[in-house]
Amino acid sequence: MNSVKKYLAEAIGTMVLVLFGCGSAAVAGSVLGTFGIAMAFGLSIVAMAYVIGNISGCHVNPAVSIAMLIDKRLSPKDFIGYVAAQTVGAIIGISLLALIINSADLGGFAVTGLGQNGFDDASAVGLSMIGAIIVEIILTFVFVFTILGVTADEKKSAVAGIVIGLTLVFVHIMGIPLTGTSVNPARSLAPALFIGGLALQQVWVFIVAPLIGGSLAAVVYRFFKCEKCGKDACEKDACSKDV
Amino acid sequence: MNSVKKYLAEAIGTMVLVLFGCGSAAVAGSVLGTFGIAMAFGLSIVAMAYVIGNISGCHVNPAVSIAMLIDKRLSPKDFIGYVAAQTVGAIIGISLLALIINSADLGGFAVTGLGQNGFDDASAVGLSMIGAIIVEIILTFVFVFTILGVTADEKKSAVAGIVIGLTLVFVHIMGIPLTGTSVNPARSLAPALFIGGLALQQVWVFIVAPLIGGSLAAVVYRFFKCEKCGKDACEKDACSKDV
Amino acid sequence: MNSVKKYLAEAIGTMVLVLFGCGSAAVAGSVLGTFGIAMAFGLSIVAMAYVIGNISGCHVNPAVSIAMLIDKRLSPKDFIGYVAAQTVGAIIGISLLALIINSADLGGFAVTGLGQNGFDDASAVGLSMIGAIIVEIILTFVFVFTILGVTADEKKSAVAGIVIGLTLVFVHIMGIPLTGTSVNPARSLAPALFIGGLALQQVWVFIVAPLIGGSLAAVVYRFFKCEKCGKDACEKDACSKDV
Amino acid sequence: MNSVKKYLAEAIGTMVLVLFGCGSAAVAGSVLGTFGIAMAFGLSIVAMAYVIGNISGCHVNPAVSIAMLIDKRLSPKDFIGYVAAQTVGAIIGISLLALIINSADLGGFAVTGLGQNGFDDASAVGLSMIGAIIVEIILTFVFVFTILGVTADEKKSAVAGIVIGLTLVFVHIMGIPLTGTSVNPARSLAPALFIGGLALQQVWVFIVAPLIGGSLAAVVYRFFKCEKCGKDACEKDACSKDV
Repeated sequence: MNSVKKYLAEAIGTMVLVLFGCGSAAVAGSVLGTFGIAMAFGLSIVAMAYVIGNISGCHVNPAVSIAMLIDKRLSPKDFIGYVAAQTVGAIIGISLLALIINSADLGGFAVTGLGQNGFDDASAVGLSMIGAIIVEIILTFVFVFTILGVTADEKKSAVAGIVIGLTLVFVHIMGIPLTGTSVNPARSLAPALFIGGLALQQVWVFIVAPLIGGSLAAVVYRFFKCEKCGKDACEKDACSKDV
Repeated sequence: MNSVKKYLAEAIGTMVLVLFGCGSAAVAGSVLGTFGIAMAFGLSIVAMAYVIGNISGCHVNPAVSIAMLIDKRLSPKDFIGYVAAQTVGAIIGISLLALIINSADLGGFAVTGLGQNGFDDASAVGLSMIGAIIVEIILTFVFVFTILGVTADEKKSAVAGIVIGLTLVFVHIMGIPLTGTSVNPARSLAPALFIGGLALQQVWVFIVAPLIGGSLAAVVYRFFKCEKCGKDACEKDACSKDV
Repeated sequence: MNSVKKYLAEAIGTMVLVLFGCGSAAVAGSVLGTFGIAMAFGLSIVAMAYVIGNISGCHVNPAVSIAMLIDKRLSPKDFIGYVAAQTVGAIIGISLLALIINSADLGGFAVTGLGQNGFDDASAVGLSMIGAIIVEIILTFVFVFTILGVTADEKKSAVAGIVIGLTLVFVHIMGIPLTGTSVNPARSLAPALFIGGLALQQVWVFIVAPLIGGSLAAVVYRFFKCEKCGKDACEKDACSKDV
Repeated sequence: MNSVKKYLAEAIGTMVLVLFGCGSAAVAGSVLGTFGIAMAFGLSIVAMAYVIGNISGCHVNPAVSIAMLIDKRLSPKDFIGYVAAQTVGAIIGISLLALIINSADLGGFAVTGLGQNGFDDASAVGLSMIGAIIVEIILTFVFVFTILGVTADEKKSAVAGIVIGLTLVFVHIMGIPLTGTSVNPARSLAPALFIGGLALQQVWVFIVAPLIGGSLAAVVYRFFKCEKCGKDACEKDACSKDV
């Protein structure tokens, strides 16, 4: 029962992220520009962090969940449940977006898309496949590394959701012209399933690279953990000095 | 006497939201664009949350008040008082805006409007009536769901007003091209009364749909409440684990 | 000696606000637009609030100081010292800005100005003098009312500076096209002294109206104070219920 | 071993700042504009402050480290280690950026650059060398002064990283059209080494001026320290009153 609550929270959170993030790109991208779309993605995470953060931890992203699995903050069973819920939530989010677009006079999917990711011809700057893989690994590494750090410090828990959202903003500022910014396999899979074609052929990059980036963040983060208190990065003036 | 204080707080708060939100759209919309208008609405709520939050809870929105009524955080008597105060406050806000516009050389109401909402020909993307109803229910659901969540966690009360304001920002980022974003019956009724015509004919959508969205948020939110401590979503490491 | 420290803090804070706020408008206004200039003013206040907040309270604005005088949080002697320091700081800020502009190839003062305020021909939308007075009273009322509220709640003191800065942002979003947004006599006087002409003739409006708006905020705020604990707006669940 | 951890943290933090800050300018500068680039720099610092803040203090900038050295919060040995780590991190950041740009169809370095700083012909507004020195001293003074203040107040430590990042935003808003904004010798040296030519000839300004600005901030900040409690700016209502 408790797991149902957590999985439902992940599904709703991912639905909101995908609907508002991809939706802003699809509906208003041309007037918003890169920064406006980046804010839509980032602020969606801020909101969800403060609603479902206490329930499921608000991963809403398989790349975050794999890092939490490696960092032993998530059980293997819950990892599977979380990723399934995130995928379902993302698909519902894109379905709602398609429903809205079909009720408007936007010229349909073909024109503005559904916020799908891409490289080569599908990248605004013609980024190559290898380039896209490198970019997505780096972007996801930075995003997940920040999440691992900020959630480990109890004294800053009140602002953690804001920090995580603002991190997603700058990750999008740089990534949108390159790949459209995935850093989240669920967020990429859902629009690719609806759009098909090139988006679906390329989607494996936006599933594999974020999972590598998230895993790498968990591995590097381990190095910074306090050797004395064992679990988290700790205060300068406490443990870390006399190790 | 105490109620007077609360109702006056709601009236002032709604006046500020409507004056600065609708005012930014009407006075500077063409230079600000979607994101700038979204920030004007969102940051108005941030400010008011920290001034009248301790007095009335800073609903400044009948869709928030109906959710608080359903969640038993507001009495039926106060619900009526709040909604009346919000409506009066919104009308004063639009009156001040009209006064300012009439003192300027903006070409009058007909050109830029007063930030009214709309669908069909009154939507930037030609959204249908059904589309507008769906969009407003979703937008209000996400906005009110976030408010219910973030205000339930005492440990994060210092940042709650900022989170709520940033949520209103992303709700506007996506909603402005679609319906102009209501999510607030008082905010929509006031300009419609001044503008008349299509705005007044369509205003029922922006009264009914937000009230449905807010009510839905209260119902869904109930599911996430802790079954042990009864009232609020609670900490991962406390109650929720052994339910 | 202690007073010297406070007055110096007010002078430095006002210098930073005026240099970066007016400077962004003068140097980069055409590429930044309304929102970017609004952010420069608002974020300058955020920074200064966290450096000199503990020393002088970071008023950096005579309209804030007059409200604090009325609210009995500032002595008459310190009010005079604060306003003098703010005026000197603002003039130093504009002097530095003039120095920078003269080192660049911006075409001199005549072209871009120094962020001065104005109405009639000096308003982007041709706002009348009466309109400008009304606008500045309203903008300053909202800004100072928020400051009085957010600084009265000890539990939210960590975010007060951020809230105040974000309030200055939305006040500028709406006010820039109308009057350029003063809400601060020291911020308006300094560029008017350098620019002369129309700016100097009109500057009385941007001294008088903000002082009225700030005073009005202090008077209205008094009504919302708790009648039991006497000094500040207090918690919903504490005093206010049984008055 | 503990030092290795701190130096590695500084290297990673500076790498992220330089990759995302300079990267946004280089990859997306033309669509982002001044404000978007400013946000990329500022939000990178927000993220890193919450990950490596507890480990190294998140200076990621020799101008911050020199101020901490003068303020006796950093040992001379660590100052050297920090600056070396920051320089290496910045070079890795620019290397990654060059790798990404080479994987894309951006027309190579010559067109958009790598976010390097400059004056005279390399300044958007033709700022002179003396002008650039003055601007960088002022910008760095304000940035480092804010850091010294906000990190001295334990009660506001939860928001310190957000305040520091937002300060970097407004420093960039004004500085980008003037010099491209350095305020950080490591951030300027790395792209200059890759670009060569004018950027490399002028880079000494962006090393020397920020170090002067940061040192000046430490000296001025000392004046505001409490004479009673000795170490930090303290509460209005506590020490400062009866000195």
